[in-house]
Amino acid sequence: MKRLLRHAHVLTMDAQLSTYEDGALVVEDDSLVYVGPDRDIPPCLLEGCDEELDLSDTVVLPSFINCHTHLGMVAFRTLGDDVADRLKRFLIPLENQCMTEELAVASARLAMAEMQLAGVGAAVDMYFFEVAIAKAAVEMGFRLWAGETLMSAPHCDTVDVAGGLEISRHLISLCMHHPLIVPIIAPHAPYSTSFEELKLAQQLAREQGLLWTMHVSEMDFEMRSFRDVHGTTPIGQLSRLGLLDDSLLAVHCIHATDEDIQLLARSGTSVVHCPGANIKAAKGLARIPVMRDQGVVVGLGTDGPSSGNTLDLFTQMKLYAILHKNELKDRTAIPARSVVPLCTSEAAKMLKSYDRIGSLEVGKRADILVLGLDAPNMVPAYDPYSLIVYSSGVQNVRHVLTNGEWVVRDHRLTRVDLKALRTEFLHIAEPFVAAAKRY
Amino acid sequence: MKRLLRHAHVLTMDAQLSTYEDGALVVEDDSLVYVGPDRDIPPCLLEGCDEELDLSDTVVLPSFINCHTHLGMVAFRTLGDDVADRLKRFLIPLENQCMTEELAVASARLAMAEMQLAGVGAAVDMYFFEVAIAKAAVEMGFRLWAGETLMSAPHCDTVDVAGGLEISRHLISLCMHHPLIVPIIAPHAPYSTSFEELKLAQQLAREQGLLWTMHVSEMDFEMRSFRDVHGTTPIGQLSRLGLLDDSLLAVHCIHATDEDIQLLARSGTSVVHCPGANIKAAKGLARIPVMRDQGVVVGLGTDGPSSGNTLDLFTQMKLYAILHKNELKDRTAIPARSVVPLCTSEAAKMLKSYDRIGSLEVGKRADILVLGLDAPNMVPAYDPYSLIVYSSGVQNVRHVLTNGEWVVRDHRLTRVDLKALRTEFLHIAEPFVAAAKRY
Repeated sequence: MKRLLRHAHVLTMDAQLSTYEDGALVVEDDSLVYVGPDRDIPPCLLEGCDEELDLSDTVVLPSFINCHTHLGMVAFRTLGDDVADRLKRFLIPLENQCMTEELAVASARLAMAEMQLAGVGAAVDMYFFEVAIAKAAVEMGFRLWAGETLMSAPHCDTVDVAGGLEISRHLISLCMHHPLIVPIIAPHAPYSTSFEELKLAQQLAREQGLLWTMHVSEMDFEMRSFRDVHGTTPIGQLSRLGLLDDSLLAVHCIHATDEDIQLLARSGTSVVHCPGANIKAAKGLARIPVMRDQGVVVGLGTDGPSSGNTLDLFTQMKLYAILHKNELKDRTAIPARSVVPLCTSEAAKMLKSYDRIGSLEVGKRADILVLGLDAPNMVPAYDPYSLIVYSSGVQNVRHVLTNGEWVVRDHRLTRVDLKALRTEFLHIAEPFVAAAKRY
Repeated sequence: MKRLLRHAHVLTMDAQLSTYEDGALVVEDDSLVYVGPDRDIPPCLLEGCDEELDLSDTVVLPSFINCHTHLGMVAFRTLGDDVADRLKRFLIPLENQCMTEELAVASARLAMAEMQLAGVGAAVDMYFFEVAIAKAAVEMGFRLWAGETLMSAPHCDTVDVAGGLEISRHLISLCMHHPLIVPIIAPHAPYSTSFEELKLAQQLAREQGLLWTMHVSEMDFEMRSFRDVHGTTPIGQLSRLGLLDDSLLAVHCIHATDEDIQLLARSGTSVVHCPGANIKAAKGLARIPVMRDQGVVVGLGTDGPSSGNTLDLFTQMKLYAILHKNELKDRTAIPARSVVPLCTSEAAKMLKSYDRIGSLEVGKRADILVLGLDAPNMVPAYDPYSLIVYSSGVQNVRHVLTNGEWVVRDHRLTRVDLKALRTEFLHIAEPFVAAAKRY
C-alpha cells in the first residue's frame, strides 16, 4: 500500500523543527518513505501509488500521544465532578462493585474513538481488564501502551498486586513485539501498593525491558502520610528505595519539591503532566517549567474521563501554556513551539519510541494528523505552532493515519461504527448507571 | 413561521433552573410560545407547523452570549502570541496603519461565523467601523451589542473621542429598536480616554438609555499610573468621579481590590470575565467568586481573537470553573450549574435583556442551542451542566437558532457560505498580512 499526501503545510517535529510550507509525505505500508518539499518527491515514489491526496489548506503533524489516561473509566464521566468526596463516594465503591470486563472494554472503545476524532493516535493506559482493552485497541487501529493497574487492595479484576502482575505477564506474552501494543507495568501509586510490590513491578519492567508508570505526589493525604511516616516526600522515599529510574513515567508530581525535581532529573525519571485534571480537582499545578529546565522529559496527559472529562490534547496544550505563563507572570514563557513537542516528539522520547514515532521522518511509522484550515477559528495562521496550541480544537481534526492506516477520514471514524459503539456502551452500562444514580 | 422542536433534554436556565428530560419547544416567528414536557404541548400548537424536528439525543439550552470581544481583530490572530511587547510592536501600529473598514468587516464576518458554529448567538463587540460591523451582523443573523471604541488618540476610523461619539450617534440612529442590534457606548479604558471624555460617554449612554462598557483594571501600567497620579485604583477613581453605574459593563477587573469590589457591588456595575485571554497574557486571574458573592453580576467573554484566539465559550466556561477551583483549593467551588448562567441567564441580566433572552421561557426570543449527544465525549451524561462545562466542545454544536431563525443546521452555517467568507477575508487581508510579517 502506497499513499501520497501532497501540498500540506508539514510540521515534522524533528530535532530542527523542520517545516515545509508546500510539503509532501509518502507512506509505504506502515512507514514514511519521503518527507519534504512537494516539488522534490523522487519520481520513483510517484509511481504505483494506491492513493493520492491533495492536502492544500491543511497543517500536517505527527498525531498526538496522550501520556496518561484510564480508558475504562468513560462510565464515570460527569459523575460527581464538583463533589468533594468523589473518590470514596463514587469511584472506589462503583469500580469495585460494578466494573466488568465488558464495561471496561466498551468504555475503552468510546475513549479511543474520542481520541482518534481528536487527533490522538496513541495513549498510555492504566486500567483493569487490560488484556481485553489491548485487544480492543488492535481492532480500532489505536497505538496503546497498555498497563494493568497494580493495587494491594482487592479490585474489580483481581485481588492483589500478585494478581495484577500475573495479568501483566499475560499481556506481555500476548503483545510483545506487536506493531500497535506495548505492554507497560503500572503500579497505581506509592500509597496503594507496598514498597516490596513496587520493587516487583520495577523488576518485571527491567527483566522485560519495559517502561513502568505510576501516580506520584498527587494527593494531599499522600504528602502528609509520607512526611509523617517516612519523614520525606513520596519522590524522596522512592529515591531512597532505588525506585526512581529512567524507565519510570511519574504521573502528576504536583507537589514535587526542589529536591524532588533534582531526584527526578538525576534518575532520568520522566513526568506526565495532566494540567486540566489537576486543577479541576483543585490539587495545584506541577512545576513543569522548572522540571524541563533541569532536563526532565515531560509528556502531557488528559488523565481519565472521570477526572479530565475530555481526552483531547488541544485542551491540555492550551492549559499547559496559559497556566504556566500566568504562574510565571510572563507571557513569553512556554512559547507555542515548546508545547507541541509534549504531545509528539518529547512524548515519544519519554516512551523510548522516538525512533518509531513522534516526528515525521523517513523510516518512522506513519502516525499522522491532518488539521483542516477551513474552519473560521483557523484563520489566519501567522505561526502554525500558535495555531495548534491556542486556536485549534477537536473540530479541526480532518484525517488521522495510524501505523499507515486511516483511522479518521473527513472527521469520521473509518474502522468502527460510532453509533454502534455508543449504543453498545449505553446498553452494557445500564446496571452501572443505575447503581451510580443510587450513590 | 411555526417550528416544533421535540424530545430534547431541555435546560431552560430560568430562575428555577427547570429542566425537561423529554422536553419540547414551540417557536412562532421570533419567539417561544411553548416550553415544557413534550407530552403537554397544547394540541392547538401542534397544528399548522412549518417544521417539526425530533431532537432525541440532544441537550437544548439558550444559545451563548459572549460578553466581550473585538470582532474586527481576526486579522491579528496568531500574531505575536508569545511576544512581550505585542501591543506596541504589532497591534497598535498595524491597527493604525493597515486596518480598513473592509478588513474589519471581513474579520467580523469570520468571527461571527466562528461563534455561530460554537453555539454563540450573541456578543458584545467593541471595535472600529462599528456601523459596518452591525450591518454584517444583521446579514448573518447574529445578535450584537455594537460598540464603537472611543479613544483619545487618533485611530483607524477617526481621530478622537468626539469622532467616536459621532459614529456612536450614527449607530444609535440606525439601530435603535432593531430586533438584532443594540448600540452600546464603548470607551476603551480609563487610561486611553480622559475623564471628561468618559463623562461624555456615560452621558450619551444615559440620554439614550443604553449600556456602556470599557476595559478596567487590566494592565499593570494602568494600576501603577493610577496609584502614582491619583493615589487610588482605576475603579476607585471612576467611583470618585461618579463613573460607576448600573449600566456599566467593566471588562477584566483583574486587579480589583476588596474595596474596588465593594464599589462595583454598591454601584451595580457588572463585570465581564475573560479568563483565557487574561491568563494567556500572564495578567492574573480576576477574583470573580468574591465579586459574585457580593452580588456583582458577571458574564464571560472570550476577548478578541488576537488575545484569546478562539471565540467559543466552552473553553471559557471550563477555564472559569477549573481556574477558580484551583485558586480556592476547593473542588466543590464553582459547580457546573453556577457556570452555565454566565453565558446565558446572568449574561442576559447584565445586558438588561433577561426579559428577551438568556433563558428558554414563553414570550422570549427563540435563541436556542442544540448540542448533539452522539459524539463520544458526550457519553454518559449524569449531569447536563457538568456535561456542558467540562465535557462539551465546539464539535458538539449541532443546530443554532437566533431570533427564531436557523443560523446553524447540522454543524453548518445556513445564511452564509463559509468558504466564500474565508476566501474574501484572505484576499482583503493580503496587505495587512504582508505588513504584519514585516513587523
